[in-house]
Amino acid sequence: MDEKDTNRLEAFSDGVFAVAITLLVLDIKFSPFKANGLPKDDALMWGEILRQGPTLFAFITSFFTIGIMWLNHHRIFKHIKRYDTTLLFLNILLLMIIVFIPVPTSLLAQYIIYPDYHTAAILYAITFLAMATCFNLIWRYASYNGRLLGKNVDMHVINRISRQYAFGPLLYLIGIAIALFNTPLSVVFSFLLAIFFAFSEISLRRNNLQTPIESDTVSK
Amino acid sequence: MDEKDTNRLEAFSDGVFAVAITLLVLDIKFSPFKANGLPKDDALMWGEILRQGPTLFAFITSFFTIGIMWLNHHRIFKHIKRYDTTLLFLNILLLMIIVFIPVPTSLLAQYIIYPDYHTAAILYAITFLAMATCFNLIWRYASYNGRLLGKNVDMHVINRISRQYAFGPLLYLIGIAIALFNTPLSVVFSFLLAIFFAFSEISLRRNNLQTPIESDTVSK
Amino acid sequence: MDEKDTNRLEAFSDGVFAVAITLLVLDIKFSPFKANGLPKDDALMWGEILRQGPTLFAFITSFFTIGIMWLNHHRIFKHIKRYDTTLLFLNILLLMIIVFIPVPTSLLAQYIIYPDYHTAAILYAITFLAMATCFNLIWRYASYNGRLLGKNVDMHVINRISRQYAFGPLLYLIGIAIALFNTPLSVVFSFLLAIFFAFSEISLRRNNLQTPIESDTVSK
Amino acid sequence: MDEKDTNRLEAFSDGVFAVAITLLVLDIKFSPFKANGLPKDDALMWGEILRQGPTLFAFITSFFTIGIMWLNHHRIFKHIKRYDTTLLFLNILLLMIIVFIPVPTSLLAQYIIYPDYHTAAILYAITFLAMATCFNLIWRYASYNGRLLGKNVDMHVINRISRQYAFGPLLYLIGIAIALFNTPLSVVFSFLLAIFFAFSEISLRRNNLQTPIESDTVSK
Repeated sequence: MDEKDTNRLEAFSDGVFAVAITLLVLDIKFSPFKANGLPKDDALMWGEILRQGPTLFAFITSFFTIGIMWLNHHRIFKHIKRYDTTLLFLNILLLMIIVFIPVPTSLLAQYIIYPDYHTAAILYAITFLAMATCFNLIWRYASYNGRLLGKNVDMHVINRISRQYAFGPLLYLIGIAIALFNTPLSVVFSFLLAIFFAFSEISLRRNNLQTPIESDTVSK
Repeated sequence: MDEKDTNRLEAFSDGVFAVAITLLVLDIKFSPFKANGLPKDDALMWGEILRQGPTLFAFITSFFTIGIMWLNHHRIFKHIKRYDTTLLFLNILLLMIIVFIPVPTSLLAQYIIYPDYHTAAILYAITFLAMATCFNLIWRYASYNGRLLGKNVDMHVINRISRQYAFGPLLYLIGIAIALFNTPLSVVFSFLLAIFFAFSEISLRRNNLQTPIESDTVSK
Repeated sequence: MDEKDTNRLEAFSDGVFAVAITLLVLDIKFSPFKANGLPKDDALMWGEILRQGPTLFAFITSFFTIGIMWLNHHRIFKHIKRYDTTLLFLNILLLMIIVFIPVPTSLLAQYIIYPDYHTAAILYAITFLAMATCFNLIWRYASYNGRLLGKNVDMHVINRISRQYAFGPLLYLIGIAIALFNTPLSVVFSFLLAIFFAFSEISLRRNNLQTPIESDTVSK
Repeated sequence: MDEKDTNRLEAFSDGVFAVAITLLVLDIKFSPFKANGLPKDDALMWGEILRQGPTLFAFITSFFTIGIMWLNHHRIFKHIKRYDTTLLFLNILLLMIIVFIPVPTSLLAQYIIYPDYHTAAILYAITFLAMATCFNLIWRYASYNGRLLGKNVDMHVINRISRQYAFGPLLYLIGIAIALFNTPLSVVFSFLLAIFFAFSEISLRRNNLQTPIESDTVSK
């Protein structure tokens, strides 16, 4: 068993993920009273809640996006057992992009109904390209010749992750291209990407559970 | 002993709980000076503090609510020893609802004195129904055929948790019904629910401590 | 060795402490430009920094106060090895008071130069009385008949902590009395209390290191 | 193996680092709509994004600065295995300076284009001098006669860290001197310092990995 070395790296990352994931809830602000200080009746208040639609949408999107990124981080750091300064730097770079995600998400949520304005969608897509690239760098750096992985690692799983990560940046590059001419379509594309990664992760995990090495570590 | 697999899931959740539980303290803002820049005398200042009543009430309510939710999370993840992607997703969904709790709590605190306005109470009750449902989903998914539980788990305890969770969503559904016609009453009902769950947890725990398996893990 | 049971309780508490301790830095806000949008020259900017004096003072005070409270929490939970629901509730109550500390601290920092206005000092002193009481409740509850302590605990250390905690609330009660008639004096008194507790902790720790049981756990 | 004693100290520090590192993202606020409520077209929006330049620059700088500080903290606490109250106090003092870093960073980012205004650069340089001094105090206190280090520590590594830390404060003192007469130059100097420390850490780490004691702890 060669488990321990990245514990504090993961704890720090978890803290940053935890703060980043909650940021957009600060934007959901109902103004509970009318200008004259009287309370709003139910019809007015539901209108107020509906007006928070884009903010709520941004909060939910950003929460699930960062949540999925945490899953990915969790997933690759299950295999990374050691670290060096380069990995720490790449991880800080990744965390910076994660913390930045609420910014373009919030902007995009305001512009999702305007198909002719592309800046928000482009900024969003660039952020995700940067993030996918950074995940790739971390994984390639750590898994190159098994540099920072555990000793009795399941190469089957490692290779599958490498293959899946290989075309991530390419897909997000397509996302930028779509964002250049149609904002709502690029949002749909982003969702499809997220669902795809989530499901491939599920199937990966399912196979994963059947490999003897993994089930061993679980039962120990 | 099959302890380790959910450690990072719990650490990340703890971080999100920790941020969520502190959010409403940001709303408590005294304006320490009069419009002319002079300090407020003691009578004025106590008035200022009293005017923060709803905000303080929201902070305290939200703190204890999220605190109790942390207890519940802690309680069920004491038995959940493994995870898969579905559980991670359900957990992220739950955390999103937890982080959202301060929003309806803050709104409700402003409207608690207006029995004729129901929107705040309904939004609050819906949030809690969603949360109770989500806890149920996590527990049912993890405990189904002991899927993600430890190997030598105490089925007595598992079944008791399952039974207690079964009627949680139903009770919160009643909460929504009450919120539809009387805001203060629905707040009282929410409190009674929280106290009930807290006490049943206490009695559960007390019995728990007497089961030999549990006390074994404690003394190891 | 009976170590593990309170790990997640401590991790969650650490998260809440970490958020609470950073809250007041959000209040330090320089306005870097003049009303006409031009940059401020060095004289103006030093004036701007000096004007942040009370905010900076509040940040530093609150940071060290919550830091010392973390020390205390750390100190008593080194001996508490198990938990029950009552302890979890008391801990949540304590954390709520900790998170609230920045509020009266910030208010007091604005009023420290006005000896005739007592509200801020009283609110501050009440908060600290509540906190000291809460620490006492946790410690008495956990240490009563060694209820939640480890099995081979050093009773010498336990009794010394109990004795030290016994007169904490009394001292803070005196603090409230002082706050009723003189704000700056009550601030000085608070500082003396903090220094006293810090130093008695140091001397305790020093003796602590000499007890064989403690040094055993260190070397294992 | 004498590992465990500082775990909670590190977990709490990680939480504070995680909150501090995300603070400046709160300052990045696009105003997505024109004064008349209409959306901004792409040209206007890119202008809006460019206008966030100093804020983005502050966010990135502060993120990497605090990230590097976390690396340093991680690095020295890998060797510190025990603690006493003095170390805890020094650590709280260090964390306070870390949490403060976003404040001068944000101010400096606004003033980086004005070489004739020095206050921001001086405040920034003083903060970093304080931080370097604090890291030095922690390291000297802990490593003095191996006071709080592990038992079979590699003195080669310890001495190298001590040597590297020795001239840190001196360098930052030079930074203050530069800030007194040229703001942009002092920013360049700060960057060179950060890069220097990062690289010396890399070379240290590389040698580190070859020492048998270190690789032993990794493979265990």
